[in-house]
Amino acid sequence: MGKIPEDHPRYQSLVAREKLIAAGELVAGAGLIAHGRGEAFDYLLGEKTTGPAYSAINVAAELLCNARQPVISANGNSIALAGPAIAELAIAIPARVEVNLFHRSSARVSGLAALLREAGIEPLGERPDFHIPGLASERAKCSRAGIGDADVVLVPLEDGDRCQALVDLGKKVIAIDLNPLSRTARAAHVTIVDELTRCLPLLITAVNRKKPAGADFDNEKNLGKVMEQMRIVLKNMQTRTGEG
Amino acid sequence: MGKIPEDHPRYQSLVAREKLIAAGELVAGAGLIAHGRGEAFDYLLGEKTTGPAYSAINVAAELLCNARQPVISANGNSIALAGPAIAELAIAIPARVEVNLFHRSSARVSGLAALLREAGIEPLGERPDFHIPGLASERAKCSRAGIGDADVVLVPLEDGDRCQALVDLGKKVIAIDLNPLSRTARAAHVTIVDELTRCLPLLITAVNRKKPAGADFDNEKNLGKVMEQMRIVLKNMQTRTGEG
Repeated sequence: MGKIPEDHPRYQSLVAREKLIAAGELVAGAGLIAHGRGEAFDYLLGEKTTGPAYSAINVAAELLCNARQPVISANGNSIALAGPAIAELAIAIPARVEVNLFHRSSARVSGLAALLREAGIEPLGERPDFHIPGLASERAKCSRAGIGDADVVLVPLEDGDRCQALVDLGKKVIAIDLNPLSRTARAAHVTIVDELTRCLPLLITAVNRKKPAGADFDNEKNLGKVMEQMRIVLKNMQTRTGEG
Repeated sequence: MGKIPEDHPRYQSLVAREKLIAAGELVAGAGLIAHGRGEAFDYLLGEKTTGPAYSAINVAAELLCNARQPVISANGNSIALAGPAIAELAIAIPARVEVNLFHRSSARVSGLAALLREAGIEPLGERPDFHIPGLASERAKCSRAGIGDADVVLVPLEDGDRCQALVDLGKKVIAIDLNPLSRTARAAHVTIVDELTRCLPLLITAVNRKKPAGADFDNEKNLGKVMEQMRIVLKNMQTRTGEG
């Protein structure tokens, strides 16, 4: 991989891509494909944090700060992209972080836990002792002291089945997902439709400010607003192409 | 990987994903990310071949049949997804197939060439003796008897810089790309915005029919129509979400 010039118009996106590829075996092949889907949806957001995303971030911060036991569920993609920011968020809330993988192997869990230790926190997830009901065995594994007992779970880049299973288990679920149409986005109570490395610093700021989010939040309506933004971006691109 | 049930609503998409992952080292990490981007755009096409894609397929078939030396440029993703269909298309036209990789290594070129031989054709690309001007050295390598001397080149899933370089070299370029906004889609003379495994059988049928495509074709206008379709799909999904 060559060095990406910092003035490249899509610098952040290209850096994220290289980070994931550099993580090698720690990120599953399916994780790379999922990242690509996210890139496409981010392109349709104009690669910036939208108004609806800011609303969701504020509600998420309030939920996390007021939780009895908030837990951040981290997978290969989220740790490879944003391990240090996840650690910073966990310290700010404070919350535990649990390594929780869809394509689980002990080698991957240990490698990702090591990255979180380097970032300054002690993660859960290496000795699973709880099963999320309704999921196939490997995908159900987690820690009782983490996701098992959590009342609020933040799931960046989560699979739809697992997001739904956490909701069914009575957890309040906050998702970070660039696809406003995904099952994860629609199953979660609060969905932040934004790129992970872009929204985590904003979420950390919102947590540190501890300002009440105020008004009622309707996740479906908020997702509808995101889709409206995407349609406008597509319309603008279409106009530009027609003129180009 | 588990077996995907054939009645799964997104069966074809999941099969494609598993094929790419199963190809292992023959598909680059960046290739998996690119596939994910395609998946997202295909979702916005409703995962079906649109009217504008049919128009582009007919024009492409005519160009390929009337070419002096048509060449299909095949990379890791396209061969892993559709090696046998690429071979069938090459025989129908008839055209040469050249293995041409963005992330080139002799091991990958040989492995992919072997897959094409299994599919019944003898590909070019293992002994590059021509450089495409304007590209960094590894990315410029190709065969004089293939892309070097070609007048019409079909590039499924191509990088934007290379697509532009082929256009600058005076080739007539036909791209297959799910992203109507990509530089590849916009640089090519004819862009088929469709999923590779879905459009190749249609392209083979059009080649075998040898019917003139008829009317004038404007690639920019055609891409505009595709974006319009995507906006309609997004609008319909938005409406459904709002009601859901």
